Amino acid sequence: MESSRIVPLYQLSFFPSKPDSCRGFASPTRQWKQRTTRTTRLHCQKMYVPGFGEASPEAKAATNLHNFFTYIAVKIVMAQLESYNPEAYVELLEFLDRNSLNDGNKFCANLMRESSRHKALALRILEVRSAYCKNDFEWENLKRLAFKMVNESNTELMRNYVLETSHEEGDK
Amino acid sequence: MESSRIVPLYQLSFFPSKPDSCRGFASPTRQWKQRTTRTTRLHCQKMYVPGFGEASPEAKAATNLHNFFTYIAVKIVMAQLESYNPEAYVELLEFLDRNSLNDGNKFCANLMRESSRHKALALRILEVRSAYCKNDFEWENLKRLAFKMVNESNTELMRNYVLETSHEEGDK
Repeated sequence: MESSRIVPLYQLSFFPSKPDSCRGFASPTRQWKQRTTRTTRLHCQKMYVPGFGEASPEAKAATNLHNFFTYIAVKIVMAQLESYNPEAYVELLEFLDRNSLNDGNKFCANLMRESSRHKALALRILEVRSAYCKNDFEWENLKRLAFKMVNESNTELMRNYVLETSHEEGDK
Repeated sequence: MESSRIVPLYQLSFFPSKPDSCRGFASPTRQWKQRTTRTTRLHCQKMYVPGFGEASPEAKAATNLHNFFTYIAVKIVMAQLESYNPEAYVELLEFLDRNSLNDGNKFCANLMRESSRHKALALRILEVRSAYCKNDFEWENLKRLAFKMVNESNTELMRNYVLETSHEEGDK
């Protein structure tokens, strides 16, 4: 079934490419006479991330979030339809069964071309994903959770390793 | 080969669950006497997103970003090793071939237990992913790109549809 396919979070190829982790720092600084000594000292402090070509890790993450927002929009519209328009709900469910949601734009493009009723649903999904991205999604919360996750995971991984190895040493 | 497996960006199951899109609004407001009329009017303006159970779309997105940061950290460390420690580079490359990077924590846990040399690499990856998430990743840029993407995609999808259908009508 096509809808069971999953989205790659990232490409696993390690192809060489230009550095892209210095965006915002690489733009030419204005050479004000009195600031020359300061601006010429500006250089990128970021780590070099290979393999993103002309794009950036942020662009890659944004593309994945974009598909995620389409998925969320479909869920929101489905939940709304279920209660007051069961026919459209079933139609969308059937369409979901035949079409993968992994590429959000492709999904919407196909939905628009299915029938005039499906087109109305597609336009609604486009509207909802835009509103969700701009108003409902909690960007600060995402950042906070990601920080928390990296701290807690690192601590837990190291703790578990130490616990395991100290047991092994105790057994000897 | 295990490393060719891909990460699901989201679960495609539409299981019913509690609403979770009102975080931050659902907490009991302090009932200061002079503010009673204002606080009781506070209610959630967000769209209901089903299917995330106790978690939230933000937590789901943060988990995916967390795995993405591990992937980025591995790429950074690989790029560093390639130039000054080719042996460790080859070892890490071989390990990558045998172990999937989709679950970042599992990957690091396995890497730690491979050998003492691998353990040093794992600790470095943990450090790099934390530093990358906190210092290098451009969170505001991510938000900006996602906004831009949703605007441009919606416009493009509608424009393409109108162009297609107007051609069809012109052909009749």
